[in-house]
Amino acid sequence: MEKIGRYEFRANPFHCDCTGRLFMGHLGNHMLNAADFHANDRDFGIKYLQTINKAWVLSRFAIEMEKMPEIYEHFYIESWIESSMRFFTNRSFRVVGKDGKVYGHGKSIWAMIDTETRQPCNLLDIKDGELLQWELKEEPNPIGKLTRVVISNEAELVKSMPTGYHDVDINGHINSVKFIEHVMDLWDTEWHCEHKLKRVDVAYVAEGHKGDHLNLYREKVNELEYGVRVCRENGDELCRMRLVFE
Amino acid sequence: MEKIGRYEFRANPFHCDCTGRLFMGHLGNHMLNAADFHANDRDFGIKYLQTINKAWVLSRFAIEMEKMPEIYEHFYIESWIESSMRFFTNRSFRVVGKDGKVYGHGKSIWAMIDTETRQPCNLLDIKDGELLQWELKEEPNPIGKLTRVVISNEAELVKSMPTGYHDVDINGHINSVKFIEHVMDLWDTEWHCEHKLKRVDVAYVAEGHKGDHLNLYREKVNELEYGVRVCRENGDELCRMRLVFE
Repeated sequence: MEKIGRYEFRANPFHCDCTGRLFMGHLGNHMLNAADFHANDRDFGIKYLQTINKAWVLSRFAIEMEKMPEIYEHFYIESWIESSMRFFTNRSFRVVGKDGKVYGHGKSIWAMIDTETRQPCNLLDIKDGELLQWELKEEPNPIGKLTRVVISNEAELVKSMPTGYHDVDINGHINSVKFIEHVMDLWDTEWHCEHKLKRVDVAYVAEGHKGDHLNLYREKVNELEYGVRVCRENGDELCRMRLVFE
Repeated sequence: MEKIGRYEFRANPFHCDCTGRLFMGHLGNHMLNAADFHANDRDFGIKYLQTINKAWVLSRFAIEMEKMPEIYEHFYIESWIESSMRFFTNRSFRVVGKDGKVYGHGKSIWAMIDTETRQPCNLLDIKDGELLQWELKEEPNPIGKLTRVVISNEAELVKSMPTGYHDVDINGHINSVKFIEHVMDLWDTEWHCEHKLKRVDVAYVAEGHKGDHLNLYREKVNELEYGVRVCRENGDELCRMRLVFE
C-alpha cells in the first residue's frame, strides 16, 4: 500500500457558493473524509480504534488554497502522514485538479484519546509503533510548520448562537469543520463574493458537545486578516481561528 | 442515452449525523445534484439554459425513505423525468444501495423561468419540445402524486433567524435544501437520535434571497407529524413543509 492515499471528489453544484466555487467547509470536510479513508485503509482509522476504545482527535487544522475547485470539477485530495510522535501525528493534504495542477494544501495535527477516560494516549503503543511505517517526511507541503494561533483579549463578542442537529457528528461532538463554517458566516455573502478565503488556521482547544451555545469573538489583525475565538457560553474556549482573505 | 440517469454517491463520515446515517439534507442535495447531472447530460440542464437566459426553479420536493445510507456506504441516486407539461416537469428519484436494495424515493416538480423577467416559460418551447422524449411514465415511484402542503394559521412562531453565506447558492438564492436543514434544526439532537425523519414534503412558494431573515412557524398535526411555514420577516411566505417522523 502506498504511503500517500488519493481520493476523488467532485465540486457538486449544490456544494458551491455564490461565486461558483466549492465552499471551504465542504473542502475541509472532504479533507477529513480523505484522512479517514487513508487511516482506515491502513488499519489505523476509527474502525480499528473503536475496537480498542481509542479515537483520533483533531488538534490543529490549516488550509491554504491558491485556487478552489469550481462547479462540476472533479479533483483529488491526497493525504499522508508526515510524522508521528508519542502524542501527536502530523497529517498533510494536497488538493490536485484533474490535470495535475496543485490547487492548495492542508495540514493537520491529531492526538489519540482513550474514549473512556478521554485522556491522551501514546500513538506509538498502537500495534507496536506501526504508525511510524507510514511516515513520509520528505514529501513537500508549502504550508510549513503550524505556528500558534494567537488572539488578544481585545477581540469583541460579535455573535452568540445555539448549535443544533446539523452541528453534531457521529461521536456526539460538534463537527470540526462546522466551527469554520460558523466563523465564515460572520461575514456576509457580499463579502465572500468579493473576497476569497485564502488561508485558515484553526487551533482546537476543547471538544464542543451537542447543546452547546457558542459565543464568537473577533478581532481585525490587518486589512484582510482576522482572528476569531469561539467559546462556550460559560467562557470555556473551544477553538481559535486565523483567517486571511484576498 | 438512457432515460434514467444513475449517479454514485458515498455517505462520507463527516456527512453523517449522530446516528451514523447520512443527513437528510445531504441526501436532498445529492438528489438535486443528480437532477442537475441528468439534465446537463441530456442538454437541457442549467449549462444549456444559461445560454438562452432560462433557469430551472424547484417548485415541489418530497423525499420518503425506508432506510438512510449509513456511514461509508456507497449508494446510487437514479433520476428520470416522469412527465412534462407546459409549465411544469415531474422528476423522480430512487435511492438504491450497492446491493440493489431500494432505500427510498424522491419526487419533484420544476418550473422554468426567464432569468431576466423572472416569468415562467413554456418548457415545450425549448428545442421544439425535445423534453418530451425523456418522459418515462411507466417507471414506478411509490411516493405517488404530490398533494398540497397545508398549514393552518394556528402555526406558532418558533424561531427567527438570519440567513448567511452558506445558505446562498450560485444563483444568489437560498439553497432549497437549506430550508429543510433549518426546519430540521427546530428539533434538537436528542429528538433526531430517537426519531428518524421518514418523509418530508416541501412546497416552494417564493425564492429566498441573500440577506433574508427567516421566521419559522410550526404546528403539530399528529404525534409524529408536523407542518412548518417559513416566511421572510415581512411576512412573505417562502415555503411550507410537512414532516413525518417515526
